[in-house]
Amino acid sequence: MILPSKILQDAVDAISNLPGIGKKTALRIALHLINGNMDTGLHLADKLQSLKNINFCKRCNNISDGEYCDICTAPGRNKNIICVVENVNDLIAIENTQQYNGSYHVLGGLISPLEGVSPEHLSIDLLLDRIKENDTTEEIIMAISPTVEGETTIYYISSLLPENIKVSLISRGISFGGELEYADEFTLGRSILTRIPYNMENKVR
Amino acid sequence: MILPSKILQDAVDAISNLPGIGKKTALRIALHLINGNMDTGLHLADKLQSLKNINFCKRCNNISDGEYCDICTAPGRNKNIICVVENVNDLIAIENTQQYNGSYHVLGGLISPLEGVSPEHLSIDLLLDRIKENDTTEEIIMAISPTVEGETTIYYISSLLPENIKVSLISRGISFGGELEYADEFTLGRSILTRIPYNMENKVR
Repeated sequence: MILPSKILQDAVDAISNLPGIGKKTALRIALHLINGNMDTGLHLADKLQSLKNINFCKRCNNISDGEYCDICTAPGRNKNIICVVENVNDLIAIENTQQYNGSYHVLGGLISPLEGVSPEHLSIDLLLDRIKENDTTEEIIMAISPTVEGETTIYYISSLLPENIKVSLISRGISFGGELEYADEFTLGRSILTRIPYNMENKVR
Repeated sequence: MILPSKILQDAVDAISNLPGIGKKTALRIALHLINGNMDTGLHLADKLQSLKNINFCKRCNNISDGEYCDICTAPGRNKNIICVVENVNDLIAIENTQQYNGSYHVLGGLISPLEGVSPEHLSIDLLLDRIKENDTTEEIIMAISPTVEGETTIYYISSLLPENIKVSLISRGISFGGELEYADEFTLGRSILTRIPYNMENKVR
């Protein structure tokens, strides 16, 4: 694509470096900013620069404006249940279900020998330390994707946990509203093997 | 959506102010930057700030890094044919067809009484001035969308042009590869009324 300005070209290239944004969308965005929305662009530039001030919580590795994150410092949350997640995206997704009131631990990735990610690259030591400090920890919920890397990570962490702590997985099976016909064989097979007793209160609303 | 950081929230809000980007995409982008791609964000911030240095060509109102744009200063281009377009997006689209070697004039909008855009908001005077200066201007091509605002703008500009200048429209009709069945009635009707003689060289490749 030939553009009539080097400044525009540079901006389009920089915008299209963002994930999920192609050259055409980047051009539309840049021209939108040039055509009377320069303030939007300058405001965004400012906020992008502020991102470098973000901290990671010293307790759970969640992103945070201060030393400890809002979830770790919230008085109403159950600190004896820790939900272990791969990244902040997953933490936010779970928070937005409004179904969980415990605390979190953000690993910062999954163990993947193929991609060169080994346990010491993740915040596993931090997790073990906080469990050692808080000896009333009851349960670790592994809210981790059921992939090869996920299963490896779950296995590795579980092997290091004190025996008195209950370890659970988020349930796996057919999505609510999903159609059996389109589910993959493995999920469908597992969902039959791990079938749950029916009772009137479990029914799909 | 509840986010665990005010800095993140501000960045997500600023990113989602861009056209075509919703909150979810904005969050994915912001977390991508935080998770080890801070340089991408800082580079983008820099390029967004540079956008305010963009000029508008004093001759044709195209965006430009200098006083006059690359197209106006290119020696090989025909300055006696001027293609009038609504905005830079349309100019870039036409340039990328590589089918046109004349010059351009960017109006900066279309006349629209409903949206309060009147002729003096557009670069129409600049167009008339440059035609007055260059008395060898032969043709004005109106490459403007066939909408009510477009037709109004074409009519208004045409009425002010010297009589010796040929005015043409980009051709309208069924798109190449388009199916008659799905064309709107108006386009189909007009394309029959304005039918063109068939010759072997015009055939669709």
